[in-house]
Amino acid sequence: MRRVLVTGANGFIGWHTLPRLLRRGFEVHGVSRRGVTVPGVYSHAADLLDPVQVTQLLQKIRPECLLHLAWYTEHRKFWTALENYRWVSASMHLADVFVRNGGMRLVVAGTCAEYDWSQGVCDEFATALQPRTDYGVCKNALRALLDGYTRHCGVSFAWGRVFHLYGPNEHPDRYVAYIIRSLLADKPAACTAGQQRRDFLHVEDVAEAFTAILQSDVIGPINIGSGSASSLAEVATQIAKILNRPGLLELGAIPMPADEPLTLLPTVRRLHSEIGWKPTYDLPRGLTHTVNWYRNQRDTAELKS
Amino acid sequence: MRRVLVTGANGFIGWHTLPRLLRRGFEVHGVSRRGVTVPGVYSHAADLLDPVQVTQLLQKIRPECLLHLAWYTEHRKFWTALENYRWVSASMHLADVFVRNGGMRLVVAGTCAEYDWSQGVCDEFATALQPRTDYGVCKNALRALLDGYTRHCGVSFAWGRVFHLYGPNEHPDRYVAYIIRSLLADKPAACTAGQQRRDFLHVEDVAEAFTAILQSDVIGPINIGSGSASSLAEVATQIAKILNRPGLLELGAIPMPADEPLTLLPTVRRLHSEIGWKPTYDLPRGLTHTVNWYRNQRDTAELKS
Repeated sequence: MRRVLVTGANGFIGWHTLPRLLRRGFEVHGVSRRGVTVPGVYSHAADLLDPVQVTQLLQKIRPECLLHLAWYTEHRKFWTALENYRWVSASMHLADVFVRNGGMRLVVAGTCAEYDWSQGVCDEFATALQPRTDYGVCKNALRALLDGYTRHCGVSFAWGRVFHLYGPNEHPDRYVAYIIRSLLADKPAACTAGQQRRDFLHVEDVAEAFTAILQSDVIGPINIGSGSASSLAEVATQIAKILNRPGLLELGAIPMPADEPLTLLPTVRRLHSEIGWKPTYDLPRGLTHTVNWYRNQRDTAELKS
Repeated sequence: MRRVLVTGANGFIGWHTLPRLLRRGFEVHGVSRRGVTVPGVYSHAADLLDPVQVTQLLQKIRPECLLHLAWYTEHRKFWTALENYRWVSASMHLADVFVRNGGMRLVVAGTCAEYDWSQGVCDEFATALQPRTDYGVCKNALRALLDGYTRHCGVSFAWGRVFHLYGPNEHPDRYVAYIIRSLLADKPAACTAGQQRRDFLHVEDVAEAFTAILQSDVIGPINIGSGSASSLAEVATQIAKILNRPGLLELGAIPMPADEPLTLLPTVRRLHSEIGWKPTYDLPRGLTHTVNWYRNQRDTAELKS
């Protein structure tokens, strides 16, 4: 049985990878600052920014595989935070002690923010890498460093570039969560006109994609997306339809930010053909699932109050 | 008086920057593993790979300017050494504590190995960055990280890309040193046919360029070169002429390595126009100076024996 360590195991994506890795037959270890409580998963509490703790952790677990999802992810702030630079060094140290303790397969979360956003459709090999944010600069530099380092050490390395995602437990101010929460509370949801085209993927599918990548032997950058584009207006309208509150949707109420690209989509040939992965949820099903989760949250909260 | 800390102060380039910075009126601090003994320079002994020592050093000195030249430079080995990756993290930590202790101007040594070598003539902004070695990958990633980090912190940052250099104290197996040493010892010097075109700069000029960059407020990458191209055959022939040993030169005795580009030259518009710097030595004078230094070394050694 192969042993895997998941960092960011309590995170938005990480938490969903744990049962999937168990199902695929891995011995699953999860690390976060406060540990992780998922049945069947070995829990570890550690601060990944502390190199001593990281060295001790990897010496103890000696995982064959590492799924590194932890990063600084404070909503909005992460784009321009200095913490990004600390996470580059911390991630290099983590990879180093992973390799020194017998590690063989490394998969790390990258981001669409590595690409030149003026290109619209982003291909792993054809599109220029031109990050414009601290987050993108740091992820892009880390990828280049890990690529060189793992080649040198003969370790298998893949880099899953996350595009747009949604689902249960998303930060309440992110696009899908904000609209669902507003409409569920019978409040208006103020949006841009919503012409921006994106590839939205349910967080469980993102987690499933990462586990599929981990289990494959495909190396290098791999875009994570459904392969279907939707405008933000279509996403919002779909949510309003599910909740039967079309009147509360205020498309065009706020201007589109100047730095936001009209089209930002991944090519998904690598994920779909080389990994052989397809999403479980299409957008209507994924949004319905997410709306139902928020309804349950609300009903549970009302029962408790 | 502005206070500058030079790392790699005992190195091939670093040692020559110290008197030049003194002449320009800096309070000069030099750090190396064993300290530095140059009159007028404050000496510091520290291991830059030890973050605790680095933090203490910067807290003590609190330099306004930092000229970071230290790196892993073991001849030939440095191209593919794992140490390169450690120097990225060490350099990021150094920059971080420099900024946190009042640092304002950072200049770091980059390399022509960051560029796509198939391009021949390398321009700071027009030529693709496509490093093919661990050394190039790490320097290129460090540059991107420092660029983002210093922009974020409002610190002035320049990156001097070193091309080809020679001069006293060069590693004895490097091109110019090898030919001079062979011919001085009346032994044949086996070379390739020498059609490769390079921009050779005397190490004192490289040091002078770095001090000029440090004192300027120009930011971003700056190629360091003379602006004159020579073939390796011309360089070798020039040395043989100075030493009057043309018969010992064996051009074409060894094949040209397959991965060696025929043309690898810098554009020097930024260095010459924006910084306003010009080299002191042309190739004949620089090679004569270097040959004389080797003659003195030999004569001194003979006197001692």
